Amino acid sequence: MNLKKFFNPQSIAVIGASPKEGKVGKAITKNILELGYAGKTYLVNPKYNEIFERKCYKNLSEIKNAVDLAIIIIPAKFVVAEIKKNAERVKNFIIISAGFSEIGAEGQKREKELFEIAKKNKLNILGPNCLGFIIPSLKLNASFASGLPKVGHISFISQSGALAVALIDMAKKENIKFSNIISIGNKIQISESELLEFAAQDKDTQVIGMYLENIKNGKQFIETAQKVSKNKPVVILKAGKNAKTKEAISLHTGALAGNDEIVSAVFKKAGVLRADNLENFFGLLNLISESKKALGQKSIIITNAGGMGVLTADAFNKKNIQLADLDETIKNNLRVFLPKEASVENPIDLLGDARQDRYAKTLDIISKLPQVDSIICILTPQDQTPVEKIADEIIKFKETTDKMVVTIFLGGAKVAKAIAKFKESGICNFNFPDKAVTAMDEYYQWSKFKKPETSFSAQPVNFERRQKVIEIIQKAKAQKRSALYFKEAKEIMEMYQIAVIKYEEILPKNTIDLELGIDFPVALKIDSDKILHKTDKQGLILDIKNHEQLKESVKKMETNFPKEPLIIQPMTQKGTELIIGIKQDATFGPVMVYGLGGIYTKVLHQINYLIPPLSLSQIENSLQQSQLGFLFQNTRGQKKYNLKELSEILLNISYLAVEVPEIKGFDMNPLFTYNNGKEAIAVDVKIII
Amino acid sequence: MNLKKFFNPQSIAVIGASPKEGKVGKAITKNILELGYAGKTYLVNPKYNEIFERKCYKNLSEIKNAVDLAIIIIPAKFVVAEIKKNAERVKNFIIISAGFSEIGAEGQKREKELFEIAKKNKLNILGPNCLGFIIPSLKLNASFASGLPKVGHISFISQSGALAVALIDMAKKENIKFSNIISIGNKIQISESELLEFAAQDKDTQVIGMYLENIKNGKQFIETAQKVSKNKPVVILKAGKNAKTKEAISLHTGALAGNDEIVSAVFKKAGVLRADNLENFFGLLNLISESKKALGQKSIIITNAGGMGVLTADAFNKKNIQLADLDETIKNNLRVFLPKEASVENPIDLLGDARQDRYAKTLDIISKLPQVDSIICILTPQDQTPVEKIADEIIKFKETTDKMVVTIFLGGAKVAKAIAKFKESGICNFNFPDKAVTAMDEYYQWSKFKKPETSFSAQPVNFERRQKVIEIIQKAKAQKRSALYFKEAKEIMEMYQIAVIKYEEILPKNTIDLELGIDFPVALKIDSDKILHKTDKQGLILDIKNHEQLKESVKKMETNFPKEPLIIQPMTQKGTELIIGIKQDATFGPVMVYGLGGIYTKVLHQINYLIPPLSLSQIENSLQQSQLGFLFQNTRGQKKYNLKELSEILLNISYLAVEVPEIKGFDMNPLFTYNNGKEAIAVDVKIII
Repeated sequence: MNLKKFFNPQSIAVIGASPKEGKVGKAITKNILELGYAGKTYLVNPKYNEIFERKCYKNLSEIKNAVDLAIIIIPAKFVVAEIKKNAERVKNFIIISAGFSEIGAEGQKREKELFEIAKKNKLNILGPNCLGFIIPSLKLNASFASGLPKVGHISFISQSGALAVALIDMAKKENIKFSNIISIGNKIQISESELLEFAAQDKDTQVIGMYLENIKNGKQFIETAQKVSKNKPVVILKAGKNAKTKEAISLHTGALAGNDEIVSAVFKKAGVLRADNLENFFGLLNLISESKKALGQKSIIITNAGGMGVLTADAFNKKNIQLADLDETIKNNLRVFLPKEASVENPIDLLGDARQDRYAKTLDIISKLPQVDSIICILTPQDQTPVEKIADEIIKFKETTDKMVVTIFLGGAKVAKAIAKFKESGICNFNFPDKAVTAMDEYYQWSKFKKPETSFSAQPVNFERRQKVIEIIQKAKAQKRSALYFKEAKEIMEMYQIAVIKYEEILPKNTIDLELGIDFPVALKIDSDKILHKTDKQGLILDIKNHEQLKESVKKMETNFPKEPLIIQPMTQKGTELIIGIKQDATFGPVMVYGLGGIYTKVLHQINYLIPPLSLSQIENSLQQSQLGFLFQNTRGQKKYNLKELSEILLNISYLAVEVPEIKGFDMNPLFTYNNGKEAIAVDVKIII
Repeated sequence: MNLKKFFNPQSIAVIGASPKEGKVGKAITKNILELGYAGKTYLVNPKYNEIFERKCYKNLSEIKNAVDLAIIIIPAKFVVAEIKKNAERVKNFIIISAGFSEIGAEGQKREKELFEIAKKNKLNILGPNCLGFIIPSLKLNASFASGLPKVGHISFISQSGALAVALIDMAKKENIKFSNIISIGNKIQISESELLEFAAQDKDTQVIGMYLENIKNGKQFIETAQKVSKNKPVVILKAGKNAKTKEAISLHTGALAGNDEIVSAVFKKAGVLRADNLENFFGLLNLISESKKALGQKSIIITNAGGMGVLTADAFNKKNIQLADLDETIKNNLRVFLPKEASVENPIDLLGDARQDRYAKTLDIISKLPQVDSIICILTPQDQTPVEKIADEIIKFKETTDKMVVTIFLGGAKVAKAIAKFKESGICNFNFPDKAVTAMDEYYQWSKFKKPETSFSAQPVNFERRQKVIEIIQKAKAQKRSALYFKEAKEIMEMYQIAVIKYEEILPKNTIDLELGIDFPVALKIDSDKILHKTDKQGLILDIKNHEQLKESVKKMETNFPKEPLIIQPMTQKGTELIIGIKQDATFGPVMVYGLGGIYTKVLHQINYLIPPLSLSQIENSLQQSQLGFLFQNTRGQKKYNLKELSEILLNISYLAVEVPEIKGFDMNPLFTYNNGKEAIAVDVKIII
């Protein structure tokens, strides 16, 4: 989809232009006519001959010249016909009008029709139910938000028009500048993925910020975002952290996986920076748009107030960015001109009576340290502090360095002028330390993602293996089962090189013969698609020591579950229990989850996510960075577990996830892993079909 | 300590008054003379006869009238003599001068002398090295910060003068008002505890905010803060989250306990609200000072932008405050006047075209709901939004309700006037949703603490038991040991009703006789104060199955640790492993820690803190709210563990902590607990002396 002409049109038709106060058609017309847009504008409305002293056309067909973009503001019920009528000549449409899927079935029907028309005629449609867009560099405000933001490098794409309006107003006050602002509305056709691609190619855009309430096509989004993020930072504020999942989830690992956590895992895979909240979103966009390059890890704080230095250092707690260490040479250089009571550790405390010379000399010394990536300049306005002169020195310094410089000038009226100067000079001032450090830390994440990774191409689907699995599934479905038997699951696992504990069926139940292929002690289990949580329902009896006990146990099971098949398994040596699962996410497809099993699943309240396809090294990294990481180190009282073995198990399960999307749920609970050389073994495997 | 006269003096002497530009002595003199202070002011400086056309005294003794408060601004080296000379007549001093403990040994000596003089003469001394104080209601600025903040209900006590200056400047801009602002400096005598008591009694103070870098007397602080917090909320911003502990810590639980976490645990015990950062501190003080009563749990959001409603609802994620549910009757009442597309769920979405009537009617309906404690009114400035009229309705509503009303008017110029109105009317406007919800959530914590708890008086020290423990310790010390033998630790544990696993000493090692009182399998351990981490140092051999293996193991141990005593213990049934410890904190004394043991200590990276003395119900609450809470419920695949048994063990250990502060470190690692009726048993106990 090429959107260059869409967002840089030579001619615009406003269909539904209006001179009437309070009408959206008036607001848009005024915005296009009066803010300096250089292209041709045609106003269309059958009710008027003239609007704002310009000719008004009865309809689009009256306009003989080319129309690059049509903005539709007419009532929803006329929109489909209008677009259909003009789909031959005009290829780009913004539908501002509301009255589509947000109002229910009738509107959904309209959207479907529009989508078909667009597909057939190769149209680009933004909206419906949107605000429009603004390209400040073209002086083009094709929206009903008032005014024109300053020209800058932030592309802001919003699923909420109201939020965009408020942020534009706020941005003016904060001197935040944009390459474009695009409201996506119901996104029947142009969605976040298409706009990501557009913004990625837009040379004026340095950072892409999106506010999203949902994601339209998960797979397309992941691919696009992953590609774009390698070159430009993408910051997304995703609403709906509390959104409850509506699906009924039958498996343990499935129930553990929250929708919002999956979104976070997807963003992480795609290199997207997830803003935690609106303030953080705003701060991060501003910081990135003013920065000259990707941000490194090490930071220095300079301050004229010790307490503020400590509070800012506190903000580095649990962050990835770090305070740089200063070596003795540097400290001695600082000692030359700083008073004896000053601190030459990081934070560098210039003391309360510091004037511009102390700031300037300190910055000069820091500028020569290659290991320092960013500098946080703090000031509290003491009575003798020459606030603006210090600001001038910082601004002067900023022009000579490619290190990131941020300021925290704390106060009100006393620091207002200095802060205004910073805004003009492209220095981000934060009013509180945590905000600065949080934004810097998130931006630093991006420079890590940006690094060229070991390139990996997903393993091709093994169609032969897939076919075998599908046959097992079809057979079970033919028997009206919603889950596979243990036997079947084991068979599939073995196709994927995963060891599963041996078992024996006990059928018919009342004639257990005494020649078992499994030594005592054994476990007796129900193997039914109706009883998935065995321990809850007493469908599991452990540690049966002899034939006598086994008979008794079988009898008990028969009473409780008269028609269900039974199996026995050996009581294998208990290893460290892990759980591994696959959940089908409505947006993103198969998502893998894993974590510590047993009671610790509950204790930790956290599991880890992997979005297939995956490489072995991605899995190894995930495992090492997870709360299981300690398993793979030789530490106090513990021999290390086999990272490679476990990674390969997860890799094989990722193959299954990709090859057989027909599997609705997968649960390996537990997998026993050992640090004594014994092979990892799955004790129970559930496959929901 | 009675500080009423100190902070409400009828007469003040400024010792070191000056007319010279840039001098602190000039700034303070001007502040006292020119801002409207109604009491008498005497200027003292031997260099001048007159300052600002007022008489200047050579020294204090020249002043014949009473002096309620003397402010000392002379060089540090003269301060001690000056105060000594006047200690008979003047009882209240502020020492502004720097040059005390912050400059090293010489200054420390001065502070010690001052402390002695103060004690002997019953003086009250604020500082040294401080800014002074400001009481806006008295128009008294006895500091060198300029101006006079507005009269309000916040008592702000700061250990950093620079921070206070910056916040005063910021407060002016934000219309934040104060009952008093006190800079405590090096707090040689008046410390946070004395000021907490003063502010608690000050009728103008509604909320106490403190910025602290350290706490002077931990025990006094806990007692005072606990008492004060029952009546007035105390908010503390404590700097130094990253502060590294300097002590060498030999025990596992001791090493797990971080200084900052201990501060948090102390604050929690004392009911203090800990501000996470400077912004949060500021927001929380402002919110509380404008609120009419303690805040309850349930909140309603009303908004004219759906997206902002969702983002604000997101901010409730993982919080204690909650969104209120609306029942059908209320929803129907809302439906009467709201458009069909509006949402009558919470957040209530009034839609983008909402005018003041929708806000007013909605607020009116909410006002009648007793289950709602707070209302968050959100507005985004759409083109047709009458921003100020809506603000007026909210202000009008606020005057009629005792529910908390906060606003989030998002934008810049378009919402500026409305926000200014809110500030004047005592409504807290937050520029972003997270800040509002975070502050509300923290304030809600306080209403929980405020509730009358089951009163409990600490169990008196059992001196007889203490004596027995002390005897054991003394004996070990006489043998130059720094830790007790297992035998001794077990003896002590039994005095505190805690079961410890049985053992047998193997001495002399080379003559193991075969008649052990313990059945195989056994564990063989080094029992030495030199080898505290047995598993690290191979001082532990588990699962020895027979005499042959035992002999071999003993031989191995003898080679590795030629002179250390050995013991054997039975291999008891492994239960759920817990760790319990006592750490001596330099500020707060004994602190208890507990958590899950074994490898999960590492996985969880978190332990729980208890500050003795404790009641049984406090311990039960702590256990249930900790990550161990799940142990005490009957859940899937698990019978519940014995909460009472474990609580009593912790209670008994708290008795030990209080009774024998001579114990430098205590580590029970592991304690096995069971859910099969078996008694909990300590497998290893270390006591450092």
